[in-house]
Amino acid sequence: MDRVYNFSAGPSMMPLPVLESIQKDLVNYKGMGLSVMEMSHRSKMYEDIIFASRENLKKIMGISDDYAILFLQGGATLQFSSVAMNMSLSNDNIDYVITGEFAKKAYEEAKKYSKNAKAIASSEDKKYTYIPTIDKSVLSANSKYLHITLNNTIYGTMYNALPNIGDTSLVADASSIILGKEYDINKFDLMYAGAQKNIGIAGVSVVIVKKSKLVDVESNVPSILDFKKQIKNDSMLNTPPTFAIYVLGLMLEWVISQGGVKTLESINKEKAKILYDTIDNSKIFTANASVESRSIMNVNFVAKDENITNSFIDFAKTKGIINIKGHKAVGGLRASIYNAMPIEGVKKLVNAIKDFELKNK
Amino acid sequence: MDRVYNFSAGPSMMPLPVLESIQKDLVNYKGMGLSVMEMSHRSKMYEDIIFASRENLKKIMGISDDYAILFLQGGATLQFSSVAMNMSLSNDNIDYVITGEFAKKAYEEAKKYSKNAKAIASSEDKKYTYIPTIDKSVLSANSKYLHITLNNTIYGTMYNALPNIGDTSLVADASSIILGKEYDINKFDLMYAGAQKNIGIAGVSVVIVKKSKLVDVESNVPSILDFKKQIKNDSMLNTPPTFAIYVLGLMLEWVISQGGVKTLESINKEKAKILYDTIDNSKIFTANASVESRSIMNVNFVAKDENITNSFIDFAKTKGIINIKGHKAVGGLRASIYNAMPIEGVKKLVNAIKDFELKNK
Repeated sequence: MDRVYNFSAGPSMMPLPVLESIQKDLVNYKGMGLSVMEMSHRSKMYEDIIFASRENLKKIMGISDDYAILFLQGGATLQFSSVAMNMSLSNDNIDYVITGEFAKKAYEEAKKYSKNAKAIASSEDKKYTYIPTIDKSVLSANSKYLHITLNNTIYGTMYNALPNIGDTSLVADASSIILGKEYDINKFDLMYAGAQKNIGIAGVSVVIVKKSKLVDVESNVPSILDFKKQIKNDSMLNTPPTFAIYVLGLMLEWVISQGGVKTLESINKEKAKILYDTIDNSKIFTANASVESRSIMNVNFVAKDENITNSFIDFAKTKGIINIKGHKAVGGLRASIYNAMPIEGVKKLVNAIKDFELKNK
Repeated sequence: MDRVYNFSAGPSMMPLPVLESIQKDLVNYKGMGLSVMEMSHRSKMYEDIIFASRENLKKIMGISDDYAILFLQGGATLQFSSVAMNMSLSNDNIDYVITGEFAKKAYEEAKKYSKNAKAIASSEDKKYTYIPTIDKSVLSANSKYLHITLNNTIYGTMYNALPNIGDTSLVADASSIILGKEYDINKFDLMYAGAQKNIGIAGVSVVIVKKSKLVDVESNVPSILDFKKQIKNDSMLNTPPTFAIYVLGLMLEWVISQGGVKTLESINKEKAKILYDTIDNSKIFTANASVESRSIMNVNFVAKDENITNSFIDFAKTKGIINIKGHKAVGGLRASIYNAMPIEGVKKLVNAIKDFELKNK
């Protein structure tokens, strides 16, 4: 079979040139006589890879030296715990906005650490189809930070404007939108993301943190979760996920080759627009998210009933379109259109929707 | 450059057929139209990969259904914490044997969790060149488990016999020897290993645990570190390191193709023997570890002075032999000869030692 258009929410489609580059160098990296997989993380040849990844991310996102960049294991889920442990003491007030499953999980993990973690807003009342409006007045007294989930993969919503919370630290899970949309990193004191949606493969997460905002962690926090220790050790307190960091580096080079985030964001908006337009004009399908909160990364939509949904999934598969089934929490359909999904793939999906409509009038 | 003989302690050399198999399938896995890197961990095609890995490990090690097998992130270092959290409550007595840097780290992480973690024996008095003898009499009262490090990568020592501790649970870090030597898994209540030395790439760890021995974790333990939750979710409480687990699976298939652990162990012993014999007969080099504690995985040796060490490292490099420098805690030289190092590589190193001796008489 030829390569398919893979609309998976994560792990997700990757750019073909990145895969081909990995393939080419797999057995003998740039003629050095070994695979990246076999390199000691303490070797000069590997240090060149990890430090280049860090520098490229700094360049792409305009990150100043006030921030540290970490490449860590455990996915966003482990960061749910680590972020609370590194940005607050266990008796501090910390605030969470609940905009979906992952936002809720972030809050629940924080609660294991801090009795004063509070959910200050939620969109659960409308099945997470919108983003609540937040300002400083709803925060807890002396809140150490407000945690938001920038893009909600399962529900297909995103923050189209950041909450205005003055000097309070903004902490964001950016797993499904990092490098898919431009952000001014200076508006965040911490941003983190699992790589497997938009910037690489599962097994590595990126944490970008303003160093001055880190606490000295409490004595029971495992060393590996201590961001200050990880910073001191260049993310290599223990053996880092060396190969996943290498792939992340190639993804960053690809982002640069595409013209950076500004260009990718405009393509992503175009991709989302033609898909939402098609759904809005459809008599069979309806978009889930409220218009003002629609994600440009995950387009969620439903058919009138489950039979039509399954029939469309099967139809799409015959066109080389896979993984468009919605998350079990929502049902229906979901097209994840991260950076690596070319506009041709989205057009193919749009045509499949139109063809399916014609066949099912 | 041709492929080198890479004696790195971890990440380490991998079998060429495994690398070639990864390379072949990298862009389009078995004609399915996508890379393993791009597969949703919830897809049937990926489940086939992860479950096959688990079944192959069960088969290779003879693991019964009393045990669970987990594939987790964070390396052995994160397991230092998780193991204590899942095998004991924070007021339980737990015992550690300190046979090197990693054994000490395991103990120190356990101490963050439990005030009753105790180092009951240590070989620090002789720079970790031997394995202390342990029996039940030295354990703490009602000790929940004894933690040992089966092979000490940095110091080149290993347990040639397991401690006789009766019914007390034996917990072992097997990172640098798993599948390099046969063990009766039934003698352990928990065995764990980072993959990057003997069974794959950095970014995934294996935990094999007797299910009946797990505690209900305390309420402040992050969900992702909760082994019962991970068991219930087939290691997929969150997105697992999908690609690293795939590589682990290929390594397991390779182990089977080589005749299993029994065959590999006998080759490993042969490799170690010809290397130790050469060092013992050398006038320039001396082995570090006491004879009865010598590792068959990491052969550590020193030259009379640092100049000779460096000169030998440079000489070896001209023969296509890399990463033989000892860990900074010990100095000297170290040859890591895990399963993937062919006997030809060891013979090449032996010849390099002999040639170097002739040149430097």
